[in-house]
Amino acid sequence: MLRRSRILRSFPEINSPQVLEGLRREFERYERALCSNDVKELDELFHQSPETIRYGVSENLYGYEAIKAFRGSRSPPGDRKILRSAVTTYGSDFGVTNMEFQRYGSNKIGRQSQTWLRTPDGWKVISAHVSLME
Amino acid sequence: MLRRSRILRSFPEINSPQVLEGLRREFERYERALCSNDVKELDELFHQSPETIRYGVSENLYGYEAIKAFRGSRSPPGDRKILRSAVTTYGSDFGVTNMEFQRYGSNKIGRQSQTWLRTPDGWKVISAHVSLME
Repeated sequence: MLRRSRILRSFPEINSPQVLEGLRREFERYERALCSNDVKELDELFHQSPETIRYGVSENLYGYEAIKAFRGSRSPPGDRKILRSAVTTYGSDFGVTNMEFQRYGSNKIGRQSQTWLRTPDGWKVISAHVSLME
Repeated sequence: MLRRSRILRSFPEINSPQVLEGLRREFERYERALCSNDVKELDELFHQSPETIRYGVSENLYGYEAIKAFRGSRSPPGDRKILRSAVTTYGSDFGVTNMEFQRYGSNKIGRQSQTWLRTPDGWKVISAHVSLME
């Protein structure tokens, strides 16, 4: 029985146009908020849960409250240029966004990965990882 | 109508015990395969799709084929110690795993983030990001 139900499991549609458009909009909104250090909007885009995680360039943050406290105290990260990005949705409520970026005045390549969940309040980041490539 | 359907959207259960147990098993399986450089098993655990992405410590790979080619050519990454890990599932088919690790002989903290999708063939990584903290 278990085997049968697993075989019949339907695969979620990848990049359904309407879903993809919705997540892409939030991805761009996040980028604008980050570059202008709009802390309120950045906070809004993260899922308010103790399970939410953000690994930053030099900090590992567990839980929405820790992420919010970090944002409130950091100096504005400043502008950056997107070199490549990929937004992908799975079904109607999950997606991942990945991008490579470069800060003005730096020659290092940065990478940002975010996993998103669509909630009754809209798309929210549940896990994020930002790093500079070695 | 759209508004109404959004309000009624049910929130996926976080960490449903059976789902969580299943993903944790795959997370541990991945770790064993990585530390023993079992390339076949590592390949099996990534979703075979051009949308699958892996940002590594010093490479950005787009698509399953690029990830597979990288694994086949790299030198074994060797053993590492897990310092902290968090496995979280959303509903029955999505999850994220995050961990901090340290390689033997290194004083840098590494971070690994993976987003998983449960497919008819089991849990598969659709997006991964590995980095060493600055």
